[in-house]
Amino acid sequence: MSQCVFCRILAGELPSTSVYEDDLCHVLMDIQPINPGHMLVIPKEHFPSLESLPVELGQHIFAIAQRASSALIDSGIQCEGVNLFLADGKSAGQQVFHIHLHVIPRYESDGFAFQFSPRYAELPTREDLEANAHYIKQVFPIAGKSGTD
Amino acid sequence: MSQCVFCRILAGELPSTSVYEDDLCHVLMDIQPINPGHMLVIPKEHFPSLESLPVELGQHIFAIAQRASSALIDSGIQCEGVNLFLADGKSAGQQVFHIHLHVIPRYESDGFAFQFSPRYAELPTREDLEANAHYIKQVFPIAGKSGTD
Repeated sequence: MSQCVFCRILAGELPSTSVYEDDLCHVLMDIQPINPGHMLVIPKEHFPSLESLPVELGQHIFAIAQRASSALIDSGIQCEGVNLFLADGKSAGQQVFHIHLHVIPRYESDGFAFQFSPRYAELPTREDLEANAHYIKQVFPIAGKSGTD
Repeated sequence: MSQCVFCRILAGELPSTSVYEDDLCHVLMDIQPINPGHMLVIPKEHFPSLESLPVELGQHIFAIAQRASSALIDSGIQCEGVNLFLADGKSAGQQVFHIHLHVIPRYESDGFAFQFSPRYAELPTREDLEANAHYIKQVFPIAGKSGTD
């Protein structure tokens, strides 16, 4: 038996509330919603991280999240806005290591916000940004699994 | 002259630090980064909202964000995790109404967190979740611009 809670849910071993299913993914209601209507788009196959997720499957997940977002706005939920959110890695807040994309309905003054203490005491200079970009550019063209250009 | 700050940046009227560019999108350094290396994936064409973004373009944006995420992890930035984040609508925190996807490097104890006051005093019951799912399911199959199944 899988130890992954999402694999167990998708196998029917644990309860869930489904909104949508196709060959590649499920859309389930989050059981700890930030607001009513909070959904998770979960690939059926187990991939622990964003890096391990096949590009085409990631693209499908995003398209379904976009559709779920439209459904939230068009449905009786009547939210005012939507956040898409993905956590990749424990340090990024990932709790279930079966990669998934949150679709979060938002309302003015719903109390949801980001709290952060930037590493910069002041905003970075253009030179700071160029230095960071330099590092990233060196590996960007070959990073990940190309297949979209 | 466009009033959209991203259109002006992409037209070269305002400064930016680029990491990647292809026919459809730019990847730029965020000038108010949560952590060094914070990037934005921005479609070249102006679409104000997630709903207005063509499905295929959204899929491209996501694939490039996935590649940017790998680049962060593989580069000298050496982050421990990544968040992908998209804000659709003012109530969701969208500030520039030219839709874009954040790629945010994360570190243990970087001080970045979510702050939220759930609408539920307690976690929702299965009946609550089923009721929300009911609303969403009614519009899900036809919501958005299909094209991935």
